[in-house]
Amino acid sequence: MFVKNCWYVAGWDKEIPKDGFLARTIINVPLALWRTTEGKAVAFEDRCCHRGAPLSAGRREGDCVRCLYHGLKFDSAGTCVEIPAQGRIPPQARVRTFPVVEKHRWVWIWMGEADRADPALIPDTHWLDDPAWRSLDGYIHYDVDYLLIADNLLDFSHLPYVHPTTLGGSEDYARVTPTVDKLERGVRVTRWTLDTEPPAFAQQVKHYQGKVDRWNIYDFLVPGILLMDSGMAPAGSGAPDGRRENAAEFRGCQALTPETDRSTHYFFAHPHNFAIDQPEVTASIHQSVVTAFDEDRAMIMAQQRQLALDPDFRMVPLGIDAALSQFRWTVKRMAEEEQKRTQEQKQAQPETPRARAA
Amino acid sequence: MFVKNCWYVAGWDKEIPKDGFLARTIINVPLALWRTTEGKAVAFEDRCCHRGAPLSAGRREGDCVRCLYHGLKFDSAGTCVEIPAQGRIPPQARVRTFPVVEKHRWVWIWMGEADRADPALIPDTHWLDDPAWRSLDGYIHYDVDYLLIADNLLDFSHLPYVHPTTLGGSEDYARVTPTVDKLERGVRVTRWTLDTEPPAFAQQVKHYQGKVDRWNIYDFLVPGILLMDSGMAPAGSGAPDGRRENAAEFRGCQALTPETDRSTHYFFAHPHNFAIDQPEVTASIHQSVVTAFDEDRAMIMAQQRQLALDPDFRMVPLGIDAALSQFRWTVKRMAEEEQKRTQEQKQAQPETPRARAA
Amino acid sequence: MFVKNCWYVAGWDKEIPKDGFLARTIINVPLALWRTTEGKAVAFEDRCCHRGAPLSAGRREGDCVRCLYHGLKFDSAGTCVEIPAQGRIPPQARVRTFPVVEKHRWVWIWMGEADRADPALIPDTHWLDDPAWRSLDGYIHYDVDYLLIADNLLDFSHLPYVHPTTLGGSEDYARVTPTVDKLERGVRVTRWTLDTEPPAFAQQVKHYQGKVDRWNIYDFLVPGILLMDSGMAPAGSGAPDGRRENAAEFRGCQALTPETDRSTHYFFAHPHNFAIDQPEVTASIHQSVVTAFDEDRAMIMAQQRQLALDPDFRMVPLGIDAALSQFRWTVKRMAEEEQKRTQEQKQAQPETPRARAA
Repeated sequence: MFVKNCWYVAGWDKEIPKDGFLARTIINVPLALWRTTEGKAVAFEDRCCHRGAPLSAGRREGDCVRCLYHGLKFDSAGTCVEIPAQGRIPPQARVRTFPVVEKHRWVWIWMGEADRADPALIPDTHWLDDPAWRSLDGYIHYDVDYLLIADNLLDFSHLPYVHPTTLGGSEDYARVTPTVDKLERGVRVTRWTLDTEPPAFAQQVKHYQGKVDRWNIYDFLVPGILLMDSGMAPAGSGAPDGRRENAAEFRGCQALTPETDRSTHYFFAHPHNFAIDQPEVTASIHQSVVTAFDEDRAMIMAQQRQLALDPDFRMVPLGIDAALSQFRWTVKRMAEEEQKRTQEQKQAQPETPRARAA
Repeated sequence: MFVKNCWYVAGWDKEIPKDGFLARTIINVPLALWRTTEGKAVAFEDRCCHRGAPLSAGRREGDCVRCLYHGLKFDSAGTCVEIPAQGRIPPQARVRTFPVVEKHRWVWIWMGEADRADPALIPDTHWLDDPAWRSLDGYIHYDVDYLLIADNLLDFSHLPYVHPTTLGGSEDYARVTPTVDKLERGVRVTRWTLDTEPPAFAQQVKHYQGKVDRWNIYDFLVPGILLMDSGMAPAGSGAPDGRRENAAEFRGCQALTPETDRSTHYFFAHPHNFAIDQPEVTASIHQSVVTAFDEDRAMIMAQQRQLALDPDFRMVPLGIDAALSQFRWTVKRMAEEEQKRTQEQKQAQPETPRARAA
Repeated sequence: MFVKNCWYVAGWDKEIPKDGFLARTIINVPLALWRTTEGKAVAFEDRCCHRGAPLSAGRREGDCVRCLYHGLKFDSAGTCVEIPAQGRIPPQARVRTFPVVEKHRWVWIWMGEADRADPALIPDTHWLDDPAWRSLDGYIHYDVDYLLIADNLLDFSHLPYVHPTTLGGSEDYARVTPTVDKLERGVRVTRWTLDTEPPAFAQQVKHYQGKVDRWNIYDFLVPGILLMDSGMAPAGSGAPDGRRENAAEFRGCQALTPETDRSTHYFFAHPHNFAIDQPEVTASIHQSVVTAFDEDRAMIMAQQRQLALDPDFRMVPLGIDAALSQFRWTVKRMAEEEQKRTQEQKQAQPETPRARAA
């Protein structure tokens, strides 16, 4: 059960070619993503309305797409404009299109009702193309339910156990409970460590003269967008009150996009605002993140294997699960509301008669 | 849902060895095909009635077959004639046999009620061993529902799109609507192009002095037998009225035999009546067909992948689907009638008590 | 449907390391097997009660196990004794443990209600570590339902057909019907051949001066333990009456442990009491058994493939199936009684409220 009326990250903008197609499945819907001659991104359901052939195996013809099974041609609104050997084009001959917005190097797609697609709901990830910040583009494919990855991202207590030599630090770290706040479309997790030693990687670049205040503020938003604000500033310089003088900051942008019920696209970058003229620092930060994410993936895949053996297994909820429980509850509530509204609409509107696929 | 009371092509005659077995699954039924000492083809269900072991892993003993799990021996009628360590042979100790007819190099098998197996219903494919015709034997295995292949064979409009450099020709070809006629057990698709240029391959052999009349007449019969009559003759020489003087003709014989719900055996040959003393022409025609069939398979497998993601996907029927809609309707009607009759028979006849498989 | 209240063989004792874990699934339950500092074997359900992560990927800490996802720590009774960042430990924070007994080199595990685990029910396999006997440790993994292997072990008639050059001997062997007796938790199959030639392998070692009396007495016990008593003694020396003078004896110990509904662990050894100072004899006996078991596996896997194509296939029961029918009936009866009792307990006891796995 997925939330449909929300913006999913469909990919990095560079993934949609000038000619040709990006074929990608999102919440079980196969999509053909392409660009008009003016470069505007378009998202088609990747099934020709006629017999279900993939349009991503088709041919661009100007601002149209021709299916290369039986030759039907569709304009960028998804309307069929030509059927070989047939004069009349039936009105239901159209492929579904999805609202698409490109913003700060990510392609956002709205998988629900098009008239509800409000671009103002797209989370701010401007650090991805802000010249004052630097990062590399990340992507990992996961063969697990995306909620297990969301659980992982919303939990700090796993850091010393899953990432002892990468992100983790000492096991004491797991003993501090972060603050969890409800957001309208998600949850915020906040954690401050005041007056602590600066970590080695920062010290090499920033040369702090004494201790620092460190913070991690995670906004995790439906459907699975993590906006990470983490960093440090000289102790006592006012960071907890919002001052960020001489700060070393990260603005991690991560997006979980379910591919199917059991697989997930994971897009990420970790923009930083220090040492931005040193590509080796950016590369090193990126590599640390990738290594840690591989550690997470090994654990989460093992977890999914064990869960799959017993659909009746019940988890024991703990206090450390406050953030992830809150997020799962939000997703569940939104998905159920949508489902309820969809059923009400179906009852009000009789189905168009169309042949069922074989 | 398959039609059972019909002749399926089980294979090329050469596939059933003199000794040993051909193991092949048809409409989900595993079969062991073998020959008596006189060479007569026999088809057993490939499960020993005792514990389900494959008889195709067994041993021929004269005109009998011995299961090499527990040693039960069956005669060519499927009757158990020996059970080691047991004197009495229970009457239900028999394996199911299926009527088999070898005709023109194809082995035909009747998967339904044996007493309805009328050899007169076997379609005529005499071109496969007629000395006036030449062809090579073809076989492709498909991991798709056979009806998607039937759709493809019953549709001319895909030719210029799927086969642009092989069978296809110009896109204008897709714009001519063929005539579709209902047959008792299938559908006929007819298409004439009068007074047109002869294609290069024919011209090299026949040296026509002017234009030609070309035809494609496809009879597609339950369960999935395509008899293709295609060719050309000098324009105005009377081909549309049935005269075939100085004609270059093909008599394609193709058979779709479902293996399981999601896989298909595809047997084919393209006999031609010209240049029959030039094996390189026959080889070249065969290779063209195989290349084009590989193009079809790539598209049909992509189509099935997209359809599988959404069982509720509904196709938009078009005029170009007249033939395939007619054929699917015929198959559905026949299968439903069979199912209804089977249920009536079950209600009339109480089940023989037998142990259920583990 | 598996019997739970019985002892399964979980492995050879050497398989559970001093540090670390043996991860093994039994009747669909993933297990983490480990040893306390004193060497006592412990069996945990291999799913942390918190989020289902495998504890076999965790860390031993003295006589405790720490989950390496979120750091929960469990003592050897499965009780959670530490949750990082959380003072109070909820009483339901515990992993299930299973009674384990090590006896004669096998690790026995009780998969049902712990208070019913009576070590007196463990079958006697003392030949596995008796100094008067010799054998090598065997293990095969099978991708089939364990009952198909049980069928095979309980049937002598397949020997000449599946094992013509290994165990089988002449086809006459299949014609003798063994005696089948019901045991409280299984079945006994007995077969005597009096006054017969000694087989070559025995003659090389024992140098019998004349004919021998041979016996095979199989006790097959729930859940799938085969205790084989087979051998030979000089003809007329009183073997049928229980005297075993100058006998060459085997005491095969075999255990089928279902892994999942469709896969099985198979542990075995064939202790013999002759030529125990000749390791090459022991190795040769072991290799013969492994070769024959591979022949069985090929047949049983082929059988399962054919059965899987038709869940409605019904086997024809024969006289030679007396032992296996008896055993299957015993398993079915015990499993049904358990299921009935479990349902009655569920109705009497309301469920503890716990979060359901995603």
